[in-house]
Amino acid sequence: MGSVGSARGGLAEAMSRHIPHLHLPGPWDGVRLQLDDKARDHLEKVLRFDGATSVTYTDGVGALGEGTYESGFVERGDEEAAAGRSHAVSIAVAPPKNLTRVRFIVERLAELAAVRLIWLQTRYTEGRAPRSDKARAWARASLEQSRGAWLMEVEEPMTMVDVSGYGTVLVADRSGSGIESVSNILSPVLCVGPEGGFAAGEISAEATAIRLNETVLRTETAAVAGAVLLIDKSSRHV
Amino acid sequence: MGSVGSARGGLAEAMSRHIPHLHLPGPWDGVRLQLDDKARDHLEKVLRFDGATSVTYTDGVGALGEGTYESGFVERGDEEAAAGRSHAVSIAVAPPKNLTRVRFIVERLAELAAVRLIWLQTRYTEGRAPRSDKARAWARASLEQSRGAWLMEVEEPMTMVDVSGYGTVLVADRSGSGIESVSNILSPVLCVGPEGGFAAGEISAEATAIRLNETVLRTETAAVAGAVLLIDKSSRHV
Repeated sequence: MGSVGSARGGLAEAMSRHIPHLHLPGPWDGVRLQLDDKARDHLEKVLRFDGATSVTYTDGVGALGEGTYESGFVERGDEEAAAGRSHAVSIAVAPPKNLTRVRFIVERLAELAAVRLIWLQTRYTEGRAPRSDKARAWARASLEQSRGAWLMEVEEPMTMVDVSGYGTVLVADRSGSGIESVSNILSPVLCVGPEGGFAAGEISAEATAIRLNETVLRTETAAVAGAVLLIDKSSRHV
Repeated sequence: MGSVGSARGGLAEAMSRHIPHLHLPGPWDGVRLQLDDKARDHLEKVLRFDGATSVTYTDGVGALGEGTYESGFVERGDEEAAAGRSHAVSIAVAPPKNLTRVRFIVERLAELAAVRLIWLQTRYTEGRAPRSDKARAWARASLEQSRGAWLMEVEEPMTMVDVSGYGTVLVADRSGSGIESVSNILSPVLCVGPEGGFAAGEISAEATAIRLNETVLRTETAAVAGAVLLIDKSSRHV
């Protein structure tokens, strides 16, 4: 059984090393955690794990650990329980037409550890949301690559009306004010429209327009820029 | 001849419309500006311009105009001289191995209107810098797409030692402080190392480490996140 919180130095040091970082969904139980066949195949056939291998791992909801992988199991070592999260930033995006760009949005936002990605259905949305299992697999791979502790959630497509259920709605718009002039918001949901913009009436009168940059940004750049600015701003106000 | 600065409202309105935005290098002279053959081919064969077409244009160093394209020439209309630039942010990046990722860096940074992109030669740099003419063509296309007024410069590859000639060196590093704790810098050059990190001794003792996010970012995500945060911070201090 891992000794939760007992070895901050050791675990922090392990987290910074170039060893594989695995997403092992909780609850963690027993001294060893079993990987499913697909994850095992990936480690042994793609990453060529052979014999006992040092790894770090996360449950995707804040906990981290350091252990040893062997033959489909991770032997648990030092672990650290989830601390509070430094932000609650969600990004809602109208999917662009090109799948590479869609995938890019999922990967970069998961890497930055946005809390949630919502696919926006708008009048002028050009692309389609990817299948949820696919988007979640991309998010998981980015979590592992970025050595994070928080797995981004990916929601099914919804309209601007439903988005407000997830927090305070902000809209990326060049006519808005800079992000610093917006007062700190506990759970912002930044909405990024399609290349053609939002249709009249799609944006509620309560939504706050924010300006991310002086230029006109592509959908995926706006999504990433918005996540970077909002996460940075929220983290400073914790 | 265009009436410089005479029609802010009209030009601002034109800049926000979905009409083509062209990069026409200065100095602008005479009532019509001639496009080179390649640019003309692009407009007529790819974008299918036919007859007189409304356009906006920039010299890439701050000036903007609104005019009419026809048969290889732009008839000049209202123009606006360059105002001061709101930031002087340069980004130096070790090129990743994959060309798609390299191109992505050029396009996103040009779109965000970083002043300068420098390719970093470091001990562990994995990829190669693209040919300069290619990188500049990508930057130019992103300038047009983002309807900007400032063309990003792309420098030839250089080492960390030479980078300091371009401004105050910052290094993206998870062990650094958040960007807000760094005092405002007039001409920051943010250095983003290769996936393997910088080698011992490559980073000068004077360089300031800054932390862009809580997770470990890929080279291209760090470059974009750094540009977004530094441009936002600089713009607020003008």
